[in-house]
Amino acid sequence: MQPEQQTPIILVTNDDGITAPGIRNLIEAIKDLGTVLVVAPDSPQSGMGHAITLGKPLRMNKVDIFEGIEAYQCSGTPVDCVKLATNQILHRKPDICVSGINHGSNCSINILYSGTMSAATEAAIEGIPSAGFSLLDFSFDADFEVAKKVANTVVRQMLLQKMPQHFLLNVNIPKVSETDFKGIKFCRQANAKWGESFEHRVDPYGKDYYWMVGNFICKDEGTDTDVYALDNGYASIVPVQYDLTDLKIKNMLETEWGDFGI
Amino acid sequence: MQPEQQTPIILVTNDDGITAPGIRNLIEAIKDLGTVLVVAPDSPQSGMGHAITLGKPLRMNKVDIFEGIEAYQCSGTPVDCVKLATNQILHRKPDICVSGINHGSNCSINILYSGTMSAATEAAIEGIPSAGFSLLDFSFDADFEVAKKVANTVVRQMLLQKMPQHFLLNVNIPKVSETDFKGIKFCRQANAKWGESFEHRVDPYGKDYYWMVGNFICKDEGTDTDVYALDNGYASIVPVQYDLTDLKIKNMLETEWGDFGI
Repeated sequence: MQPEQQTPIILVTNDDGITAPGIRNLIEAIKDLGTVLVVAPDSPQSGMGHAITLGKPLRMNKVDIFEGIEAYQCSGTPVDCVKLATNQILHRKPDICVSGINHGSNCSINILYSGTMSAATEAAIEGIPSAGFSLLDFSFDADFEVAKKVANTVVRQMLLQKMPQHFLLNVNIPKVSETDFKGIKFCRQANAKWGESFEHRVDPYGKDYYWMVGNFICKDEGTDTDVYALDNGYASIVPVQYDLTDLKIKNMLETEWGDFGI
Repeated sequence: MQPEQQTPIILVTNDDGITAPGIRNLIEAIKDLGTVLVVAPDSPQSGMGHAITLGKPLRMNKVDIFEGIEAYQCSGTPVDCVKLATNQILHRKPDICVSGINHGSNCSINILYSGTMSAATEAAIEGIPSAGFSLLDFSFDADFEVAKKVANTVVRQMLLQKMPQHFLLNVNIPKVSETDFKGIKFCRQANAKWGESFEHRVDPYGKDYYWMVGNFICKDEGTDTDVYALDNGYASIVPVQYDLTDLKIKNMLETEWGDFGI
């Protein structure tokens, strides 16, 4: 239980960049729950996954764009931001880390590509209870009202309860009005993937280039998935782990592959 | 079982870039097991994780640097390379995808940051049995003999046996001589993390910048981990999943958090 007399420190980051409406809405949603510190990328970093910056230095500058909130923009990836925040600014762990609100879905397999979720994962690895929030609306004019309520509720709950070490949530919010919003469901990650295609073009100098375009393919018919919840007007919460060991396959291989003869 | 009369198509990629010694050694190790197609980044992409290129176009050019092998270099990330290979070059799934041989360890938590493993993961998502190979030696003059034997053995085994859908292996090889090499072990991902620090410097124009430096911290004392196997002269194989749902925490939350009151 968080002692009530101590104000928790809440680290806020995202992958759409520090000027995106989503992060401003997240700050508004949770700023009354603790002392907010913002460290976010200085440019959009969507699709950066768990990338870190190796081999080149990072820049970080204090910015005054959120009234009364200490904030820094960083030249690196969302994961870099979390590392810099704990190591160079706080010199301690924040009590909680929240990432988002992402402009667009991070449900199902999107978690792997998402800088928003990877930042939250990085914090969880450090033992900081964390959550990533994503709204299923890419528009910069998106209506964040439902998403803000969900974020406030989840963060309040995380601060009230004693979280297990490395606690990590992937929270997605449907694009619905407050009246059509059904509530929150705990879910498993739907089994889905992106079906990519590439648009092949030729530049003015005669050289080929390719634009990646894709469509989301979900063949998972379960009613306990994040995709199902979101399709039915619920926000989805998937608790996330980052031990990727597939123990079933490990057992199978130990039996079937046996000695390799090396 | 792979019909013996058909030559399997083996997609090869990496994250150190198409000119790295590691990918050349991987090709040499497995080229007799099938028809090899190489699609790899045109520059080093270490630490890129599962990043994809959004919002800018990709370049891809055929190169003639591996004798008798069709090869392309791509301006994108390792994951982009896999997408382009299946979609723009093969127009079908290869029979197997191998990634590496990475210069440096991808055991334990490194899997999250690794472009090498993320490329293999992307292929597995597509239903292509895949393996990433990493040698615990960053040097470009590294001795790849043990790693080549391991890669050949594992790929041969993967082609012989019927793999489950989305089969994915994280294979790490210790930096030992052939005489000191003990064999191959199936392992779980060790619970470890990077302890980062940042070197703060000031550039000639008076502006701050930061170099990330880190040390690997493993407090996992298990003898069934990849870290333990590697420390004891074995190559480690961790079978990998990418459904990140933490079902234990999901059950706990359903019981303890219950109705959110939204």
